This record gives sequence, structure tokens and C-alpha cells, in this order.
Amino acid sequence: MSTYGPELEVQIARVRADVARLHNELVRYNLIVWTGGNVSGRVPGANLFVIKPSGVSYDDLAPENMILCDLNGDVIPGTPGSDRSPSSDTAAHAYVYRHMPEIGGVVHTHSTYAVAWAARREPIPCVITAMADEFGGEIPVGPFAIIGDDSIGRGIVETLTGHRSRAVLMANHGPFTIGRDAKDAVKAAVMVEDVARSVHLARQLGEPTAIPTDAIDSLFDRYQNVYGQQPQGQIN
Amino acid sequence: MSTYGPELEVQIARVRADVARLHNELVRYNLIVWTGGNVSGRVPGANLFVIKPSGVSYDDLAPENMILCDLNGDVIPGTPGSDRSPSSDTAAHAYVYRHMPEIGGVVHTHSTYAVAWAARREPIPCVITAMADEFGGEIPVGPFAIIGDDSIGRGIVETLTGHRSRAVLMANHGPFTIGRDAKDAVKAAVMVEDVARSVHLARQLGEPTAIPTDAIDSLFDRYQNVYGQQPQGQIN
Amino acid sequence: MSTYGPELEVQIARVRADVARLHNELVRYNLIVWTGGNVSGRVPGANLFVIKPSGVSYDDLAPENMILCDLNGDVIPGTPGSDRSPSSDTAAHAYVYRHMPEIGGVVHTHSTYAVAWAARREPIPCVITAMADEFGGEIPVGPFAIIGDDSIGRGIVETLTGHRSRAVLMANHGPFTIGRDAKDAVKAAVMVEDVARSVHLARQLGEPTAIPTDAIDSLFDRYQNVYGQQPQGQIN
Amino acid sequence: MSTYGPELEVQIARVRADVARLHNELVRYNLIVWTGGNVSGRVPGANLFVIKPSGVSYDDLAPENMILCDLNGDVIPGTPGSDRSPSSDTAAHAYVYRHMPEIGGVVHTHSTYAVAWAARREPIPCVITAMADEFGGEIPVGPFAIIGDDSIGRGIVETLTGHRSRAVLMANHGPFTIGRDAKDAVKAAVMVEDVARSVHLARQLGEPTAIPTDAIDSLFDRYQNVYGQQPQGQIN
Repeated sequence: MSTYGPELEVQIARVRADVARLHNELVRYNLIVWTGGNVSGRVPGANLFVIKPSGVSYDDLAPENMILCDLNGDVIPGTPGSDRSPSSDTAAHAYVYRHMPEIGGVVHTHSTYAVAWAARREPIPCVITAMADEFGGEIPVGPFAIIGDDSIGRGIVETLTGHRSRAVLMANHGPFTIGRDAKDAVKAAVMVEDVARSVHLARQLGEPTAIPTDAIDSLFDRYQNVYGQQPQGQIN
Repeated sequence: MSTYGPELEVQIARVRADVARLHNELVRYNLIVWTGGNVSGRVPGANLFVIKPSGVSYDDLAPENMILCDLNGDVIPGTPGSDRSPSSDTAAHAYVYRHMPEIGGVVHTHSTYAVAWAARREPIPCVITAMADEFGGEIPVGPFAIIGDDSIGRGIVETLTGHRSRAVLMANHGPFTIGRDAKDAVKAAVMVEDVARSVHLARQLGEPTAIPTDAIDSLFDRYQNVYGQQPQGQIN
Repeated sequence: MSTYGPELEVQIARVRADVARLHNELVRYNLIVWTGGNVSGRVPGANLFVIKPSGVSYDDLAPENMILCDLNGDVIPGTPGSDRSPSSDTAAHAYVYRHMPEIGGVVHTHSTYAVAWAARREPIPCVITAMADEFGGEIPVGPFAIIGDDSIGRGIVETLTGHRSRAVLMANHGPFTIGRDAKDAVKAAVMVEDVARSVHLARQLGEPTAIPTDAIDSLFDRYQNVYGQQPQGQIN
Repeated sequence: MSTYGPELEVQIARVRADVARLHNELVRYNLIVWTGGNVSGRVPGANLFVIKPSGVSYDDLAPENMILCDLNGDVIPGTPGSDRSPSSDTAAHAYVYRHMPEIGGVVHTHSTYAVAWAARREPIPCVITAMADEFGGEIPVGPFAIIGDDSIGRGIVETLTGHRSRAVLMANHGPFTIGRDAKDAVKAAVMVEDVARSVHLARQLGEPTAIPTDAIDSLFDRYQNVYGQQPQGQIN
């Protein structure tokens, strides 16, 4: 029955489990409503990724419901979940995987405060140290692009290539985040909403004080280096 | 004991179960407090609908507590739950079912951000793509109407007839939503609060950028068409 | 062992159970943090009331931990819980029970939005129908009074006597609510925060439209009359 | 196996259990996201404290995962959890324990509203009685200091020494709180976010009324004295 060798099947199974489980984090942090939001993860060592099916309740996201796609976003026939349609954002995820080989995870949400910045097409300024740690500067805004062709994926890649930020606010739409794996991209989705909210609130009652550029650089460098030594998550 | 034939009894039982269960979604998304809010669903193939009883705790909403009404909003005697009063908004629900035959579900909440727009009698502008997808444009405001006659139901029907939006903000009151069934109307209630909140926040710090009309049309058309092929829920 | 006759003991037991259980509603609706907030209930037919102990975790509020007091706020010796101190707001609750014989429940919280209005010493204007239903007009502000004598209780009674509202915002402090029993006062505490939040948000982006006085009167009258026929809770 | 005598081992075990358990309170009150935030507690009668490991999920914080450090912030080798790195804020906690011998607990979070005030480097004015009770006046702002040397710890100690407040808003960073033990510092972390939110909201729609200084003094004195008699928690 197996299309791939046993080692690759193990990898696929692991990514299916990760992607299914990580959707719970979107619920836990109130980043999505109804069936909105999607997480995908690249299968290491293969031109494949795993993504959520379209329009399925978060109470019903088991590993075997996740959908295996190639890097064009086409569903691999005969694999578990292949009788369903993948997320309607699959083309955008696929575009990222094709053009950013170092990226192993992509997440999209309509989280509230990030969407508010996106609706004004305004980047989030870097005024809190957690944001310097995590994103190394401001969160940029991507172009206005509507679903149906490659324009969302292209907007994400063009905005984030060479940028420290793992998050982009697509204009009038919402945040897309990337990471070295699905968990890292989910962490970026959690953190972008957290900083979007904190900076929004700070701005409501006055102008936040900017963090000096060299301090941002220092915070980002330290965080990324320490991070490299301790791959299991955020340092706190 | 059965008033209706076996097929219709099955339908009634299904709608009772759906309506009872869907109230949990109002709780899950923080759309209601105390015993506020109500969901109803039309019984397919009959001049009947099922609605929540008045003033009953959300911890105690079993299918057999739901109340069966005719399209004048009168309780059907001798059916389960008929010893209780139906929701005080029953007349408004009944008016919608009488005048909008294609509608299978109605929901009313006092969800916070939607109420805030309603208190200013200000429609919610369409500045985020999720809103274009779901509502095809702005969320309109209905007239000021107080409970006690047909004026709330009439206000809903007059505002939403011929409108893409499945949600109306009744002035100084709150949102009413409609849908092809109870679940679809609940989804609209969840989404109207979500966009009410996002656009509120966007507006707090400046003016959101409008989405061009042709892009709104394109998003709405795509979403409705895809939706039609996949009746189980939102595409994401 | 029983100080009182068997009938009164049954009443006391019931009020203990109600008061203990109702604190969970303060948690459920996020009206309190840590050990803040307190609920009390009058024992029908006796000069007694039951109140929460001071500084006890909400995870540990069993009926036998509740404290029985006379209408001077003195703990009844030898009754369950009497080895603990009652809430530091006990004097204020006792003052209300002494001076408002029709009142059977008192609640105090530091719920966020209500405190915000209280910090500005600004009454909440009646611009939403749910507020007209529940409070019959604006939520008034009481005097600035600090703990230690009768001044808080006196401020509550002087502000609410002859007023439709069951809630008062004590200046720079927070809401106190009253009701025909403890549950009714808890409902008022839930609703005052709900309307404080909705009207706050409405005001952030402009000026809400006032509801005409005759419509407020009509809504309040209907709600109170229907309420009278159906003692189990809110009509919705 | 035991490095310390049996009495001290009992104390260490108790502080491990407290520190592990208290992280749940940060989750319960939404003070942290992902693995952010940290709690530590001094071991009474020893130059030791217990702190959270770095980057570990809140679902996985058992007492034996907590890390025992000396007052220089160095991990005690051979003790449970010593194979992991302690929180990256350990140096700041250690600095506080070295320079404030009366302090038994330290907490750091990035709670939303407190961070918003910190981003503007604006102290929170004392306009609500709960804040007078708990903090005895305004919540001060500490210097801008980045991680990597003693500057965060020094900033905390210099700002809070001789100050009534147990909380400081480190500029562009977030709140640090101190207490007589870990639980007391966690309570301060919960309360600082609560007052940060309430005063933020109050300020959004106008200027809150200041509480007279003598009333602040009176509230703070009463609260601290009553507190002293009833060591188990807040009076309410």
C-alpha cells in the first residue's frame, strides 16, 4: 500500500501528526474562528508537504484527515485524506515551499489584531523587546492579492525573502507566517498576534518609544544564537 | 403519540438536536452572556421551526427542551418542551421564516463588538477579505424596533432582502443573522462578531484601506461557488 | 447542634449552597481575578445573610466554608465557617440588607470595564436595548468611599434607592449590584460588565445614538412584567 | 544522594512544587503565551532559589523539572532538572535575591496591557482603589535594559527599593514583580495586569479622577495590616 519507502513514510506520519496537533494551538490562543486558519509542514527530504483539509471542524482534525500534496499543491492520490479538498490556501503554501527551500512550515490565520494592522496596511513597529527577539524588527505588510492564482504566495515570498521577520501581514487579509518547521511557524503566528495586540494597545494612548536599532540587532542576534543551541522552543 | 408522519418526525428530531447543540457554539465563541441569545432552525418540508426556550441556562439545553412552533410563532401543543415559553424573540424568527422561504436558520445574539456598531447605528465597512468572502460587502444597519409586534422581524426582512449580507445590525439592539440552515446562521453570527471586532480595532488607529468593489465581487463569487460544491462548511 | 429550627436550617443550607455555587459564575464570566469579588444572599424569613470568607481561593468555595452573619455583619458563632473572617466588604453588604428589606442578594466585583467607568466617575448611558431591559436607564455612579466604616454601604443605598438600576459604580472602586436574591444580583453583575463593555466600545469610535425615553420605559416595563411571570431567569 | 540535610530538602521540595504549580496561574490569567514568562521562589534558610527551565511547554512543568540555582544564578549540579538550562531571565532573578533579602519570589511576564504601558515608558497612575490596596500608588517604570548582564536585575532593584509597589514595568519590555514568596509575586503579576487593563480602558474615554493621597495611604495601610494578620491571601 505504501507509495514511499519506509523511512519517508515515517517522516510523513510524523508531519501528519504534527500538523494535526498544531491546529489545537491556533484554537488555544484564539487565533481562529470556525474552520478558519491553516497549518502546513514540509516533509523533510521530499518534495511534499502536509496541509489541513478545507472546511473541517477543529474538533475533527486527526492525522489521517491531513492531506499530502506535492510542491505544486496537487493532492497525492491514494493517500489518506486524499478524497477531500485541501485548504483553499494550499496554492499559497505550495508557492512558499517551492521558492523558499529552507522553510519547513507555513501558517495562515485571521487573528484579530494582526488583521486590524493589515486592514490599515500598516507595518507593526518594533517597540517591545519580545518583538526584537522574535522578529528582529518590524512586521512588514505584503501586497493586496486575492485568492485564485499565485499572487498570495508570491506576495509572501517577495516580502519575506531577505527579511528577518517570519511574519507578513497580507494587505486587507491577515498574517502568514513561516518557520523552519510547522511548530516554528505556529509559534510565529502566536507571537505576531501577541505583538500586534501589545503594540496596538500601546499606540492607543500615545506614542511608544522606539527601541534603538543596535539594541534590536543585539536582542535578535542573541535570541537566534541561543535558539540554535536549544532547538526545542523559545528561551524564557 | 406522533403528530406527524415518521419522516417528518425524523426531520424534527434532527433540527431539535442541531438547534440544541448549536447554542454551544454561541458559548464557545463568547457571543452571549447568561441566558441571552437564541438559535432557531426551520424543519425542512413543513411550516414549522424549532427554537430555544426562554430563560433557560445554556448548561441545560437538551433537544427535548427545544420548542416546536408554527410559522406564526405559536407553540405546537403536546410536543416536547411545549410546557415552556419559547424565546421572547420568537415572533421575529417566525416573521423571517414566513417572508424568506429560502432561509432555514435564524440567530440572534448581543455579541459585544456587533452591539457597539449597532449602538452607533453604523454599518461595518468591508475592509477585510474574510468579510468580502462571507458577507460580500458591508454589514447593514436595520431600523430601531422594539419587541412586542412584528417590527423587529420586518426590519430584518426589509434590510436583508436582496442584500448579500446574511447579518443585520438592528439599531441599538444587536445582530440578527440568517442562513440556509441553523448552522449556517450560527456561522454568520460567529463571523459578524469576528469582523465587527477586527474592523473596530483597525479603525481605532486610523482609516482602513477600502477593498476595491471588483475585488469584493470576485471574492464573494468565488466563495459562494466553492461553498456550493462543498456544503459542509467554510473553505479555509 | 442546630441553633435554629429545622425549617430555617433548610433555608440557611440552601442559601449557603447558592452563594457558594454562584461564585463560579463570577469566574465563568471573568468578573474577578485572584480571590477578589464577593456574593452574599439573605436568608428568607430571618435577620441573617450568608457571605464568602475573606481571601479564599475560588477553587475552594464549598457551602460549609460560607459564613453566616447577622444584619450588623457579625459572624454567628458556632456555625460552619465561623472560624474564618468574612469578606472585608461584609459591612457594606450588611448595610444594604438592613436598609433595603426587599433586597435578597448583593454582589461586588472589580470587573474591568465597569471599573473603567468608575475610575472616570462617569455613569453608563443607556444606548442599547439590553440595558433598557435590565436596568431601565443609565447605570449611576456612587460616591467615593473607602472601606472601614458604613460609607460604602450608605453610598450604595443612597444611590440605588428609588432607582431602576440594580447596579451602582462606586467611584474609583467598582460595581456593586443588588437583586431579589443572590442569583439575581449575580445576573446584574454579569450584565453590568456586559453593557459597560459594549457602551465603552461604541463610544470609542463615535457617539452612540440615545434610545428615546419612552422606548426605554416600554422595554423596562415589558421586561419586568414578563420577568414577574417567569421567575426562573432572563427572557431571551 | 541528598546534597542538603533532610529539613532543607523538604523546603526545596516544597518550593519546587510551588513554583511548578504557580506557572498554571500565569496560564489561567492569560499572562503568557507559548513558553514565555517565569516564576521563581527562594528556598527559605538557604542561598538558593528554584526557577523554571528555559523553553519548556507549560503542559510539562513538573516539580522535578524545576531548576535549583545559587544566588549567582548558577545551576546546582546533580540536582533534579540540572541537565537543562534555566530560564534566560535567571540572572535578573538572582540579582533580586542577592540584593533584596526580604524578597522570596520573583515573576516576569509579557502580559499584554502591562507591556503596552511599558512600551510607552509610562507609569500606571493610581486611580482605582484595588491598586491603592495592592500597590500603594503608581506602578513605576524601570530603565531600558537588555538581557546579557546585570542591567535588568539592577533596574528592578533600583526601581523597587523603598517603593511600595511590588511591580515594575521595565521599559519596552514588560512587568517584573516581587513578593514575600513566589505566590505573592504571582499575585502581584496578576494584579498588575488587571490594573494596567482597567486604567488603560478608563483613559481611553477621558481622564480618570485621581484618588487623594491620604486615601491611597489609608487603603494601603489597612490592606497591608489586615494582610499581616491573615497570611493566606487577599482580603475580599
